[in-house]
Amino acid sequence: KSTLALGGRKEEEEREAAAGGATGAPASGGGKDEKTIVSYWGIQPPKVIKEDGTEWKWNCFRPWETYTADTSIDLTKHHAPTTFLDKLALYTVKALRWPTDVFFQRRYGCRAMMLETVAAVPGMVGGMLLHCKSLRRFEHSGGWIRALLEEAENERMHLMTFMEVSQPRWYERAIVVAVQVVFFNAYFLAYILSPKFAHRVVGYLEEEAIHSYTEFLKELDKGNIKNVPAPAIAIDYWRMSPNATLRDVVEVVRADEAHHRDVNHFASDIHYQGHELKAAPAPIGYH
Amino acid sequence: KSTLALGGRKEEEEREAAAGGATGAPASGGGKDEKTIVSYWGIQPPKVIKEDGTEWKWNCFRPWETYTADTSIDLTKHHAPTTFLDKLALYTVKALRWPTDVFFQRRYGCRAMMLETVAAVPGMVGGMLLHCKSLRRFEHSGGWIRALLEEAENERMHLMTFMEVSQPRWYERAIVVAVQVVFFNAYFLAYILSPKFAHRVVGYLEEEAIHSYTEFLKELDKGNIKNVPAPAIAIDYWRMSPNATLRDVVEVVRADEAHHRDVNHFASDIHYQGHELKAAPAPIGYH
Ligand SMILES: [Fe+2]
Ligand SMILES: [Fe+2]
Ligand SMILES: [Fe+2]
Ligand SMILES: [Fe+2]
Repeated sequence: KSTLALGGRKEEEEREAAAGGATGAPASGGGKDEKTIVSYWGIQPPKVIKEDGTEWKWNCFRPWETYTADTSIDLTKHHAPTTFLDKLALYTVKALRWPTDVFFQRRYGCRAMMLETVAAVPGMVGGMLLHCKSLRRFEHSGGWIRALLEEAENERMHLMTFMEVSQPRWYERAIVVAVQVVFFNAYFLAYILSPKFAHRVVGYLEEEAIHSYTEFLKELDKGNIKNVPAPAIAIDYWRMSPNATLRDVVEVVRADEAHHRDVNHFASDIHYQGHELKAAPAPIGYH
Repeated sequence: KSTLALGGRKEEEEREAAAGGATGAPASGGGKDEKTIVSYWGIQPPKVIKEDGTEWKWNCFRPWETYTADTSIDLTKHHAPTTFLDKLALYTVKALRWPTDVFFQRRYGCRAMMLETVAAVPGMVGGMLLHCKSLRRFEHSGGWIRALLEEAENERMHLMTFMEVSQPRWYERAIVVAVQVVFFNAYFLAYILSPKFAHRVVGYLEEEAIHSYTEFLKELDKGNIKNVPAPAIAIDYWRMSPNATLRDVVEVVRADEAHHRDVNHFASDIHYQGHELKAAPAPIGYH
């Protein structure tokens, strides 16, 4: 049954659904009849089974989106800026880092959680703009729409993970709302004016992210931050062992950031060479 | 090699890449050095092999996104409007249909192509807004972000398919740009003000889409529109037989629209019951 099991009045609803039948029309706008409509559309999320035979418990991601992070990636790569735009991108990121360091100090768990709410914006904005462009111009995207949306989803999963080990306070929630409004619009504008600059900024942001996750690991190793067990969602998403810890999580997240760094510097380079992204096949599933 | 093979000067680039090494810094802003950077990031799209062993030729979608359309879906389902908002949604759609009919007359191929550029907008807008909300509120999405983005990608694939059988003229391209700007903003605003109304509108739009694809099929059967072979992209995307025709394509596209209809009416119903979408698991992969 696809009936929303929200009220617990399941049996009654089922009888209603059977009676509702062919028209799908509720007799009135009341809540009771509307529940009938829900079943009428017959949408039932398929039961997903994990590899070990147990039921999949996450709705926000599915088994086929999980992966093993490639932690062997080179963490030290850096794009040395030469053009004016590259330097502007680097200094923008460096300028943003200073207040961030002051605000968070050594609270790396909180920092990770807060910054992931920002990190998930560029991929969504870029993917959306490329999607609209693909429609407007009757053109293929070369897979870049999906690649950028995948990045956004991956960053959102980082947030869903760090949420489990660090709870945002009310003023932090307020800051996140304000920062999202500003950053979304700024990135939207930047991407329209110069995608080459926008991707370069993200490339540098990811270089900084690698740096702060490395600091996070140092604090964990020193014992200043407690190395708690990894959240269940992280174990399922990155296919980690059941006794993985926060340290393992930070390591795979850092590897993700290094992959985003490569993708975004690569995207900027394509634009620097005078091409649109679709000129080069997108790195889909580059983890 | 991930070097962009755009200039054909591959060997020289490889030597440069080997020399460029550890810093990734181009000596100047010239095009030659920038090609070196591209290889430096080491991103190489994996070679994807089709089930039959041949190389996958599409960058804009991958084998694991293909599916067999469920053409057995009930095409006649209709949500009978009872509330004011539902009626407003239905009359909005009916009002939009009249100028569309006048403009396109019986040119269903052209109509399909043009309307798919609009159809791919709501899923992207809804998915983006839910993504931003999920980040702002530190909340799971219940899979709805992905479900709506999947709808947008599916609609974009409809466009990529109809593009192959119908070429847009210059004034049609101009119309698409204008319509996209207006519709994107209107839907964005509607989704912020009332997602229940926005999803209902899409539900009704999909009901109309089913109707026009049925008319398209009738014209094909009458021989007024030539039943050309199905485009290669459609055969790969919907896993159709190599000798499938335009008629088969229109049938599977119509089935897709019926699935979108269900998903969007369902989403609207969830809101009518006073819940957010995440209260019900999203129908991921509902084809
Ligand atoms: Fe992240
Ligand atoms: Fe990142
Ligand atoms: Fe469509
Ligand atoms: Fe549709």
